Amino acid sequence: MINVGIIGAGRIGQVHAKSILSGVPQAHILAIADPYMKPAVAEWAKASGIENVYTDYKKILEDERIDAVLICASTNLHAQLSLEAIAAGKHIFCEKPIDQSVEKIEEVKAALAASPKKLIYQVGFNRRYDHNYRAMRDAVAAGKIGEVQYVRVSSRDPEPPPAEYAAVSGGIFMDMMIHDLDMVRYLSGQEVVELYAQGACLIDPAIGEAGDVDTATVTLKLSNGALATIDGSRKAVYGYDQRGEVFGSKGCVVNANDSNSNIVISTVDGVTAEKPLWFFLERYMGSYQAEVREFIDCIIQGKEPRVGIEDGLVSIKLALACSKSLREDRPVRVDEL
Amino acid sequence: MINVGIIGAGRIGQVHAKSILSGVPQAHILAIADPYMKPAVAEWAKASGIENVYTDYKKILEDERIDAVLICASTNLHAQLSLEAIAAGKHIFCEKPIDQSVEKIEEVKAALAASPKKLIYQVGFNRRYDHNYRAMRDAVAAGKIGEVQYVRVSSRDPEPPPAEYAAVSGGIFMDMMIHDLDMVRYLSGQEVVELYAQGACLIDPAIGEAGDVDTATVTLKLSNGALATIDGSRKAVYGYDQRGEVFGSKGCVVNANDSNSNIVISTVDGVTAEKPLWFFLERYMGSYQAEVREFIDCIIQGKEPRVGIEDGLVSIKLALACSKSLREDRPVRVDEL
Amino acid sequence: MINVGIIGAGRIGQVHAKSILSGVPQAHILAIADPYMKPAVAEWAKASGIENVYTDYKKILEDERIDAVLICASTNLHAQLSLEAIAAGKHIFCEKPIDQSVEKIEEVKAALAASPKKLIYQVGFNRRYDHNYRAMRDAVAAGKIGEVQYVRVSSRDPEPPPAEYAAVSGGIFMDMMIHDLDMVRYLSGQEVVELYAQGACLIDPAIGEAGDVDTATVTLKLSNGALATIDGSRKAVYGYDQRGEVFGSKGCVVNANDSNSNIVISTVDGVTAEKPLWFFLERYMGSYQAEVREFIDCIIQGKEPRVGIEDGLVSIKLALACSKSLREDRPVRVDEL
Amino acid sequence: MINVGIIGAGRIGQVHAKSILSGVPQAHILAIADPYMKPAVAEWAKASGIENVYTDYKKILEDERIDAVLICASTNLHAQLSLEAIAAGKHIFCEKPIDQSVEKIEEVKAALAASPKKLIYQVGFNRRYDHNYRAMRDAVAAGKIGEVQYVRVSSRDPEPPPAEYAAVSGGIFMDMMIHDLDMVRYLSGQEVVELYAQGACLIDPAIGEAGDVDTATVTLKLSNGALATIDGSRKAVYGYDQRGEVFGSKGCVVNANDSNSNIVISTVDGVTAEKPLWFFLERYMGSYQAEVREFIDCIIQGKEPRVGIEDGLVSIKLALACSKSLREDRPVRVDEL
Repeated sequence: MINVGIIGAGRIGQVHAKSILSGVPQAHILAIADPYMKPAVAEWAKASGIENVYTDYKKILEDERIDAVLICASTNLHAQLSLEAIAAGKHIFCEKPIDQSVEKIEEVKAALAASPKKLIYQVGFNRRYDHNYRAMRDAVAAGKIGEVQYVRVSSRDPEPPPAEYAAVSGGIFMDMMIHDLDMVRYLSGQEVVELYAQGACLIDPAIGEAGDVDTATVTLKLSNGALATIDGSRKAVYGYDQRGEVFGSKGCVVNANDSNSNIVISTVDGVTAEKPLWFFLERYMGSYQAEVREFIDCIIQGKEPRVGIEDGLVSIKLALACSKSLREDRPVRVDEL
Repeated sequence: MINVGIIGAGRIGQVHAKSILSGVPQAHILAIADPYMKPAVAEWAKASGIENVYTDYKKILEDERIDAVLICASTNLHAQLSLEAIAAGKHIFCEKPIDQSVEKIEEVKAALAASPKKLIYQVGFNRRYDHNYRAMRDAVAAGKIGEVQYVRVSSRDPEPPPAEYAAVSGGIFMDMMIHDLDMVRYLSGQEVVELYAQGACLIDPAIGEAGDVDTATVTLKLSNGALATIDGSRKAVYGYDQRGEVFGSKGCVVNANDSNSNIVISTVDGVTAEKPLWFFLERYMGSYQAEVREFIDCIIQGKEPRVGIEDGLVSIKLALACSKSLREDRPVRVDEL
Repeated sequence: MINVGIIGAGRIGQVHAKSILSGVPQAHILAIADPYMKPAVAEWAKASGIENVYTDYKKILEDERIDAVLICASTNLHAQLSLEAIAAGKHIFCEKPIDQSVEKIEEVKAALAASPKKLIYQVGFNRRYDHNYRAMRDAVAAGKIGEVQYVRVSSRDPEPPPAEYAAVSGGIFMDMMIHDLDMVRYLSGQEVVELYAQGACLIDPAIGEAGDVDTATVTLKLSNGALATIDGSRKAVYGYDQRGEVFGSKGCVVNANDSNSNIVISTVDGVTAEKPLWFFLERYMGSYQAEVREFIDCIIQGKEPRVGIEDGLVSIKLALACSKSLREDRPVRVDEL
Repeated sequence: MINVGIIGAGRIGQVHAKSILSGVPQAHILAIADPYMKPAVAEWAKASGIENVYTDYKKILEDERIDAVLICASTNLHAQLSLEAIAAGKHIFCEKPIDQSVEKIEEVKAALAASPKKLIYQVGFNRRYDHNYRAMRDAVAAGKIGEVQYVRVSSRDPEPPPAEYAAVSGGIFMDMMIHDLDMVRYLSGQEVVELYAQGACLIDPAIGEAGDVDTATVTLKLSNGALATIDGSRKAVYGYDQRGEVFGSKGCVVNANDSNSNIVISTVDGVTAEKPLWFFLERYMGSYQAEVREFIDCIIQGKEPRVGIEDGLVSIKLALACSKSLREDRPVRVDEL
């Protein structure tokens, strides 16, 4: 049994807590901490058998019974909390992104390498655990489509965030398309060598005024010579649109969106299926549980998680390269950063 | 908080227990009983916070703290346990079928009517809670396809049961197609007036020797004049095939099978999607949790469940009418029984 | 080069003429005859290079240059024209049904057998030449789904005919579902042993008053023990709905409707594809050309067509058995007729 | 009746001849010319009622009875033949591309503008007449998806051409992806402002040695601010893959590939549909007839074709911009050319 502490009791912290409670029997949540702990959340935690509810996360790090922490605090604290947790000898599941700065992630990476105890460090790129994307990756890895020649990721949110958010989040590449950049690497099994980003503000002018774009494409060259494109949008009125394709020498694999049901209604108006699931938590709920389950398994079995600190580092570099490419309207090599 | 006791700790008893533990927070499992309780199950129950593990179900009925019972024992005990639970004033969730005899179900129905305390009695026709079938029913009930004129249910198991099972289960109509007979009523919102059943033994000769068929169709006339067909098979090599259609004056609604993922691979061999889910527990897992959740909600809110004792009674009559029709090779009116 | 005469210049006669002109280069239409030949049709025929336009079909039968005739006159004349064409030594393509009476078809069959010249006699069951149904049949014949255990044919017209038509056409089984009865035989490669028909009048009361039904199902037992169902409707508001399924020991094969295009539009209202093609001529146009092409090929190569007089005879027996079953509300063995 | 002459009796010349013979009744082919006219083709032409079969195309231009010519000669002759046909006062249907040089097309454009007789000049971008792409365009033009924000065109040939062909054809952008560049303009209704092309040689090294690529992507900025991507490959082992998507403020429209049939077979190996049609002539046959029909209609009604000389000119500029972008690894503005 692995004892776990959760740092941050906001939306994603609660998601992980529920995942563990309902589906990860080898883990026991010993404590949850949040400086702004809401009474309702504290009450729910107690009722769910989480014995310790703190406002100070340090109590978690100091508790010797706790083997592992889930860092679910705000992004700007991820790196610092990671460093402290490493110092305390805890295994770490850290929400993405680790940080918006390459340097800070390098610092965490160095601390991890220097830790006398071998620590599991997993980053919350949940899509790698999604049933559809994992099935695509498995098909590629099994050689079913041969050598990868082209990858496409199409990614559209149902609604744009407030413009203020775009300003602090690091922008569309950092807060949204970072998942898609990671998917290109995951699906292809290749590294990105060079990329070119285009952007436009077509949905909400306030996003443009905040210095960001709401529609973007990225074209990428991969280490095996393959090409890739990503197209992203902040607003698909029909729901959360998450599709992709990998094409190779022996064929291609595509996925489709998930819906509430697979019924199809035919009337005088057409042949109509349900829209994609609307909310990312609903769409990716299975993946959230799967990633936490793997985290606990990795601790128990001492194996590497599907997505480690290097993946967290590379994804940030790619997001920064996209911003640079968009700003300078030119292809940018990843090793420029 | 509703206190619950589970009678029967076999496969389906465990399914319901897990559903409650992970997704029905308003219910608390106070006890589970099974005359042949396996040590591993007892241990799992304890670890999951189920305080009382019995071999004698009477201890559950006698426990005044317990508001409701889930009857998950073998079919031949359902009616007797129902009567005892009614006498003990417990709300009842009873696995299907209530019994293979109309008389015994009538007895339960009478006892229920005579109970001084208004008791919820829900029957385990889980498919009524399935996301696909519920979406079909909702579309029909919302008038999207107009007046119902035809219903089709296609239902195929991945593997036939042992021939011995077919002999005691009441046969294909009683143990398998009873779900499909219920689906015709549920999807259409109509009663069955007359039906005609065909059967053949094409899969396993031992099933025929045991006096049953493994392939069957049923043609039905509904109370509003609409027609219906059911086709059933004990063995679809590609997986658990569960499809249906409702056709009406304004259109039709169909569903499709669920799969592990929705990826599609194109190669020289064709354009290939995943097979349907193989196992009924996997395919209908969501519906098992949904039906137990509704049971608890009905108790709390004093409302009628989606599927009550009358539905349990009618489904048995329909299964018996099918057997009679097959035996006599003629259409049988349901009111003949 | 095969010289052809067309008897009957109505809708279907023109369809066949155009098929030959545009896609059957080995056939030359030497004459077309119709007692009520419309001037516009005569003009079109001349402009298309059909040299002889007659009101009297006997001129075609008497013309020694003509090798083959297409009988496209009204149904009640098919048998008589067949007999005369056999006497004149012409190969015959006869529109379905050959006749509504078994005796008359037997007469044609006998005359054909007695003909000193071996004559090709093909019946216009065009669906056997349809790309989707042929692909299904080919898959079944290639053993891809193993032994056939169940066949389903779903068949819905976009609009009911006038009630007067239903009265003279022989009813829904004779004028519409005869195609579906033929499809059960074609797809399965089996003969029908027994069937049971249900009918209802749910669409147009005038059809009921004319003594017919507009909604029907047929349940069938096949010669290899397999079962089958057909569901038919005179009115699917979303278009001409033509679907089917063959299920067997190694899998199943289904088809889907054809549409004008395969685009899918996603909006706030849903994910919408195009409706099925509306009109049978549009839906089955390819099959009309393919059947005439095979007719000419069979003449040239002296081989048997995919659908001969025996198929025409059996289909009538099946349609009559359906009517009898519906009238008497009981299963009817085909050998009762 | 429009009299037509066909210049060039190779594959595409024959396709157009057959289209007219079988489906464009208002046009009459008076002559066909080819310096290397094959005897079999000459014979077929005669048998099909084409009275004049020449080796010298000038006889067509000199024939005053001929209203219109179809230029189906080799690409390097298109511009010169266009100029001569304009001088002869003929309406022109010219196969794509008009030429590989912007200057030569400008010359044709100027001659056309200077012609005293208003001449129809249509370019053979047949995909604009394809049922799927036309339905997409119609949906976009009808405002069903709102303002266009993103366009995607995926285009894969089933087999690469010989490397020698790539060397003279102008390369992948000029001979293959020119269609896709045109599709971006057609589907969006927008002009291309800037583009960036990536290429790789992953299929046939000989293509790389000939100075071309066999895998490519193009990222584009459109005049309304929308973005677009094209991904192209010379070899999809599963067939001719032709898909696209237009995304906008109110939704998106996608298409799917066409197949020989729409049957789906489920076995232990999966749920398998047919592969896309293999050959472009088969896939786009309907569009070839539709474009020639529109050409004749435009002549008769004096209206503009869906694709005129300006479209021919712009597509060449885009293909040249792609080559330049690939060569210089930088985004290229179209007005640079």
